[in-house]
Amino acid sequence: MKRNFLTLAALSAGAVVLAEPALAAPAAAAPAADAVGGGTAYILNTLLFLIGGFLVMWMAAGFAMLEAGLVRAKNTSTQCLKNIGLYSIAGLMFWVIGYNIAYPGFAEGSLGLIGGFTGIYSMQEVGAADLETGYSVASDWFFQMVFCATTASIVSGTVAERVKIVPFFIFVTILTGIIYPVVVSWEWGGGYLDTVHGFSDFAGSTLVHSTGGWAALMGAIIIGSRVGRYGPDGKVNVFPGTNIPLATLGTFILWLGWFGFNGASQLAMGTVGDVSDVSKIFVNTNMAAAGGVVVAIILTQVLYKKADITMALNGALAGLVSITAEPLAPSVGQSILIGGIGGAIVVFTVPLLDKFKIDDVVGAIPVHLFAGIWGTLIVAWTGDATFTGQLVGVLLTAVWVSGASAIVWLALKYTIGVRPSEEDEVNGLDKAEIGVEAYPEFART
Amino acid sequence: MKRNFLTLAALSAGAVVLAEPALAAPAAAAPAADAVGGGTAYILNTLLFLIGGFLVMWMAAGFAMLEAGLVRAKNTSTQCLKNIGLYSIAGLMFWVIGYNIAYPGFAEGSLGLIGGFTGIYSMQEVGAADLETGYSVASDWFFQMVFCATTASIVSGTVAERVKIVPFFIFVTILTGIIYPVVVSWEWGGGYLDTVHGFSDFAGSTLVHSTGGWAALMGAIIIGSRVGRYGPDGKVNVFPGTNIPLATLGTFILWLGWFGFNGASQLAMGTVGDVSDVSKIFVNTNMAAAGGVVVAIILTQVLYKKADITMALNGALAGLVSITAEPLAPSVGQSILIGGIGGAIVVFTVPLLDKFKIDDVVGAIPVHLFAGIWGTLIVAWTGDATFTGQLVGVLLTAVWVSGASAIVWLALKYTIGVRPSEEDEVNGLDKAEIGVEAYPEFART
Amino acid sequence: MKRNFLTLAALSAGAVVLAEPALAAPAAAAPAADAVGGGTAYILNTLLFLIGGFLVMWMAAGFAMLEAGLVRAKNTSTQCLKNIGLYSIAGLMFWVIGYNIAYPGFAEGSLGLIGGFTGIYSMQEVGAADLETGYSVASDWFFQMVFCATTASIVSGTVAERVKIVPFFIFVTILTGIIYPVVVSWEWGGGYLDTVHGFSDFAGSTLVHSTGGWAALMGAIIIGSRVGRYGPDGKVNVFPGTNIPLATLGTFILWLGWFGFNGASQLAMGTVGDVSDVSKIFVNTNMAAAGGVVVAIILTQVLYKKADITMALNGALAGLVSITAEPLAPSVGQSILIGGIGGAIVVFTVPLLDKFKIDDVVGAIPVHLFAGIWGTLIVAWTGDATFTGQLVGVLLTAVWVSGASAIVWLALKYTIGVRPSEEDEVNGLDKAEIGVEAYPEFART
Repeated sequence: MKRNFLTLAALSAGAVVLAEPALAAPAAAAPAADAVGGGTAYILNTLLFLIGGFLVMWMAAGFAMLEAGLVRAKNTSTQCLKNIGLYSIAGLMFWVIGYNIAYPGFAEGSLGLIGGFTGIYSMQEVGAADLETGYSVASDWFFQMVFCATTASIVSGTVAERVKIVPFFIFVTILTGIIYPVVVSWEWGGGYLDTVHGFSDFAGSTLVHSTGGWAALMGAIIIGSRVGRYGPDGKVNVFPGTNIPLATLGTFILWLGWFGFNGASQLAMGTVGDVSDVSKIFVNTNMAAAGGVVVAIILTQVLYKKADITMALNGALAGLVSITAEPLAPSVGQSILIGGIGGAIVVFTVPLLDKFKIDDVVGAIPVHLFAGIWGTLIVAWTGDATFTGQLVGVLLTAVWVSGASAIVWLALKYTIGVRPSEEDEVNGLDKAEIGVEAYPEFART
Repeated sequence: MKRNFLTLAALSAGAVVLAEPALAAPAAAAPAADAVGGGTAYILNTLLFLIGGFLVMWMAAGFAMLEAGLVRAKNTSTQCLKNIGLYSIAGLMFWVIGYNIAYPGFAEGSLGLIGGFTGIYSMQEVGAADLETGYSVASDWFFQMVFCATTASIVSGTVAERVKIVPFFIFVTILTGIIYPVVVSWEWGGGYLDTVHGFSDFAGSTLVHSTGGWAALMGAIIIGSRVGRYGPDGKVNVFPGTNIPLATLGTFILWLGWFGFNGASQLAMGTVGDVSDVSKIFVNTNMAAAGGVVVAIILTQVLYKKADITMALNGALAGLVSITAEPLAPSVGQSILIGGIGGAIVVFTVPLLDKFKIDDVVGAIPVHLFAGIWGTLIVAWTGDATFTGQLVGVLLTAVWVSGASAIVWLALKYTIGVRPSEEDEVNGLDKAEIGVEAYPEFART
Repeated sequence: MKRNFLTLAALSAGAVVLAEPALAAPAAAAPAADAVGGGTAYILNTLLFLIGGFLVMWMAAGFAMLEAGLVRAKNTSTQCLKNIGLYSIAGLMFWVIGYNIAYPGFAEGSLGLIGGFTGIYSMQEVGAADLETGYSVASDWFFQMVFCATTASIVSGTVAERVKIVPFFIFVTILTGIIYPVVVSWEWGGGYLDTVHGFSDFAGSTLVHSTGGWAALMGAIIIGSRVGRYGPDGKVNVFPGTNIPLATLGTFILWLGWFGFNGASQLAMGTVGDVSDVSKIFVNTNMAAAGGVVVAIILTQVLYKKADITMALNGALAGLVSITAEPLAPSVGQSILIGGIGGAIVVFTVPLLDKFKIDDVVGAIPVHLFAGIWGTLIVAWTGDATFTGQLVGVLLTAVWVSGASAIVWLALKYTIGVRPSEEDEVNGLDKAEIGVEAYPEFART
C-alpha cells in the first residue's frame, strides 16, 4: 500500500493536515490541498473493500456459468450445485479457521512458515470501529473471504463431470480451511515469502490462481480422465461444452469481478494517490484481458483457420490471471503484452495437457496455473521483486499445494471414493447425484 | 440509523467537529480523529443509496432468471415479460402514489395506521441539495423504489404459468401502489408498528418478503393450481424447471443484490461507525445464505440421497430472507444458524404446500413468507425487539396483505378473469399471450 | 458539470471553504456546512468514474447476451466471439489513438472540427495524482473507453448472422479508433458542436448511440440482408431469436449499466450538488426505461393482441437511449414521457425498416439511432439547448459517421469481402468461422 505522495510536500509547506490530529497545530493554517480526514479515509478504505468484495463474490457466479456452459448437459446441474456449495463452504471455513491461519501474526524471529490457528474470526461490536486499522475489519474479512472462494472455484472446473459431490465438498473444505490460508500466511500474512524472499504477488496470481491450479492439477491426475475422453492411439475425443453463451457470460462476469479482485487489492483509497493507483489497476487489468483475447483470436485464426470462442474466453481469463501478480506497476503497453502472452500460453498449452492425458474440462490449468506462474515471474521485470524471489514463491506454493492436495485427493480416493460408477458417469452426474436435470425439455442430438 | 459512537467523546474532549458548523468554535482545536464533514457525509450517505439501489435493481434480473429457469419452456417468454413489466410498473406506481403513502408523515397523536396520500413524489431542483436530510432525496427514493419492485417479483414466481398478463399487471399495479406502501408506512414510515409495538424489521423480512409472500399465497389459492399439477389420490405431478443454470444465475444475482438490500438499509455510511456496520451486515448476510445452502444440501442428501439443486438455490434465498429482519446485531455464528434454519424451512415446507394443493411454481412462499416470518420472530433473540411486538407485526401484515390481495385477486377473477383457457395453458402462455417462443429452435423431448 | 450551488453562499458568508486552498484565509472561521476537502472530492470524483466505468463495461456483457439471444442458434458462438472481441479491440484502439483524437485540445481560434492525433494515451506514475484535474486521469480514460466500446456493440447486433469475423473486426478497429473519437472531439472534446452550436448531449444519445446506429445502418445497407430474409412480394420471413431469457438478461444488464452510463456522466460527485444530481439522473434514467417498457407492452397488446417480449425489451432500451442526451434536467414525469415515446418509436419503426428491406437483426437501428435522434432533439424542450443546435449535431454526426462508415464497409466489401459464402451463411457462421457450436447437444426443431 503506497502512501500519499503529497503528504511530504504538504508538511514541508507547514500546512496542517487536518486528517491527522497528531500533526494538527493550534494555530490553523491553510490545510493541504489533498488532505483527507482520518474518518473519511476509514470510510473510503472500507468502501473499497465492500465494492471489491461484492465484485469478487460475483465471480463465483462467473465460474458457475463458465463451467455450466462448458460441461455437457448431463452434468450441468451438478456443476451448478458444486459452485454454489463451494462458495458457501469457503465462507464457513474461512470464518472457522481460514482467516486466522492466513493472518496469524507470526512471532518475532520466526521463519514465518507455520503460523498456526489463532481462533475463530470475530467481528467488532455493533457501532464500533477501530480507527487504528484504517478500515473496518469486517470489510477486510469479507474481501479476503471471496478470494478464498475463488481458489476453490478454479478446482471445480478442471475436475468436472467425474467427481461425486461429497468428496468434492470435502476437498473444498480442506482447501479453503487450510491449504489456501497457509499459502496466504506466507505472503499477505507477512510470513516467509514476504519477509525472507521479497516475494511479490499483488492480488494473487500465485496465492489464489496457482494455488487453485495446483489443486486442480492434482485432482485431474489422481481422479483420472473422463470415461471415453482418451481413445487408443492417443486419440482425444472432444466433449464440446453445451452452452457457449453461458460460458461467454461467465467470462464477462469474471472480467467485471476482476476490477474488484485487482483494484481493491490496493487495500486503500483514502488518499488521492491510492485512488489514482486503483484507477491505473482498472486500466491495466482491462488491457491485459483485451490483450489475451486478441492474441487468442489471432493465434487460433492463424493456426486453425477458425477463431475459437473457447480459446478467446480463456484468453481473456489468462490475460487477467497474468496481470494479477502486478497490476499497478506496468505501463499500459506492458500490461497488454503480459496479458497477450497469457493468451498465447492458453492456446499452446491446452492441447499439451491432452498429450499427457490430463483431462482439464474447462482449461483451468492453463488459465490459472500456467498463466499464474507467468504473471508471477514477470513481476521481476515490471515490479519490485527479483526473479529468484518470485521463483521461490512459485516453487514453494507448488510443493505445498500439490503435496497437500495430492494427499487429500488420494485419501478420498482410497476411502469414500471420488468417482461415480462408470454407468453413473456415462448417464451423467445429474441423474445419479442430483436428480434434477439441467435442461429436461430439450431433446438431445 | 445509528449515530457515530465517537461523536460524544470528540465533543467532550472539546474538539471542533468540523462537519457541524453549529458546534464549531472560532478558536480552532485539533479535530476529532474520525470527524467527517457534513458535505462528505452527505455524499457518502447518498452513495450508499445509489450503490445499494443499483444492486437491488439488479435483483429484478435475478428474479427474472430464477423464474425463467424454473418454469417450463412454453411459459418462459411470458415469465420474462412479466418480470420486466412488473419492475417498470413498480417504478411508475411508487412515483405516482407509493412513496408518499409509505412516508406520509403521520400526524401527532395519530395511531399511525392510516397515513393517506400526500401527492406525487417530486425531486429537488437540479443542482440543489438539502443538507438537513443528510442525503439526496432522489437517491433515497430510488433505493425505496427497488424494494417495492422486489415485493412484486416475489408474486410473479408463485403464480407463474397460469395467469394472463393483463390481470397480473393490474395486481402488480395495486400491490406496488397501495398494498405494499401501506405496510411500509406502519414501520419505516414511523407508524403504528414502529411507535406502538417497537416492531423491528431492518431490511424487510416482513415488510418486503412476507408481503410478497402473502400476496403470492392468496394468488396461488384463488387462481388455483396449474392444469395437471395434482392428480387423483394426492399424486403430485412434477413439472421440472426448464433451465437450471439460468435459475442458478438468478440465485447468484439475488445473493449479490442482497448486499445492497441489507447493507444499504443501514441508511448511512457517513461515519466510521455506520460503514463498519454496513461491513458487518455484508458478512452476516453472506453467512446466512451460506448456512441456508449447506443445510439444504445436507438435508436433501440425507433425506433423499440426492443433493437437490433447486433446494440448494432456495436454501440460499431462504437464508437471505431469514437474516433480513436483523442483519446487523447477530454474531457470525448466529447468522449462520438463522440462515441455516431458513434453509431447513424450505426443505420441509416445499412438500407441505403440495399436500395442501397450493401450487407455488418456484417455491417463493417457503422462501419469502415462511423464512420471512422466521427471520422476523428471531429478532427477539438477537435484536432489540420483543417476541410479542414482532408477532404483532407479522400478524398485522398477514391480515392486511392477505385481505387486500384476496380482494384484488377475486375481483380480477370475477371480472376480466385471471386464467387463460385450459387449451391456452396447456399449449403454453408464450403462444397465447406473447407470440414469441422462448426457445423456438430447441426440439422438445 | 455543474458547480456546487452552495459555494457562493458559503463565500458570501465569509466562510473558509477548506477544500480550496486558494481561498483559505489564515484566520480560521467556521467552515461551510457542506465543504468537502479537495483530496476527498478528488477521491469521490474518481470513484464515480470507476463505478460508472465498471457498470458500463458490464454493458458489453449485456449486448453480448441480448444479441446471442436474438440470433439463431447456428450463429450464436460467432456473436459471442464478436462481442468479446470488439470490446477488446475498442480498449486497444482507444488507447493507441482514440482517446487523444477525442480530446485533442483544439487550438485557440480553430473551428474545432479537425483536432488530430496527439499521441498514445499514457497514465501517470504509480502513486502520482494531479489535483488540478480533480480526478484520476486513468479513471477518466477507463470511463471514456467503455463508451467507445458501447458504440461498437451497437453495430454487431444489426449486422449479425452475415458478416465474417475478420472484416467485422477491421470495421470495429476503425470505428473505435477514428470514427467515434472524431464525433466525441466535436462535443465532449470542446470542438465545433460544443463551442459554435451549443449542442448538448449529456451522456451520448448522439455521440454514442446515433454514431453506433449510423454505422450499423450503413452496414445493413451495404452488406445486405440475410439469405432468405425477404421473399418475393414483400414477404418478410421471421427468423426468431433462439433464446429469449438470454435476451432478457442482456436487457437487464444494459439497464443496470445505464446507471453508470448516465449517472457517472455527471463527471463529479465531490460536492453535495453533484451527488444529488447523480441521484436525480438515476431516477430519470430508470423511469424513462420503465416508460419505454410500458408503452411497448401496451402498444403491442393493442395493435397485435399480444404483448411482444422483444418489443418490451427494445422498449426499455429505447427509453434509456432517449433520456441519455439529457437525463438530469427533466422532471420525473417528463422522463417517463420521453422514454415512453422512445418505446413507441421502436414499436412503429421496427416494421418500417423491413419495408425498406433493411435487415436489422436485433432492432438496434430503431433503438439506438431513431430513439437517439429523438432524445437529442427533445433536449431543446427540457435542457439548455436550441432545437437548431441539436439538429446541427444530429446532422453533422449523420454525415460524418454515415460517410466514413460507408467508405469502410464498401472498401471491405470490394477487397477482402464481408459476407460468407451463401452455403456458409445457411449452415451458420459457427461452423464456418468458429468451429464451435453454441448448443451442440440440443436437437433442432
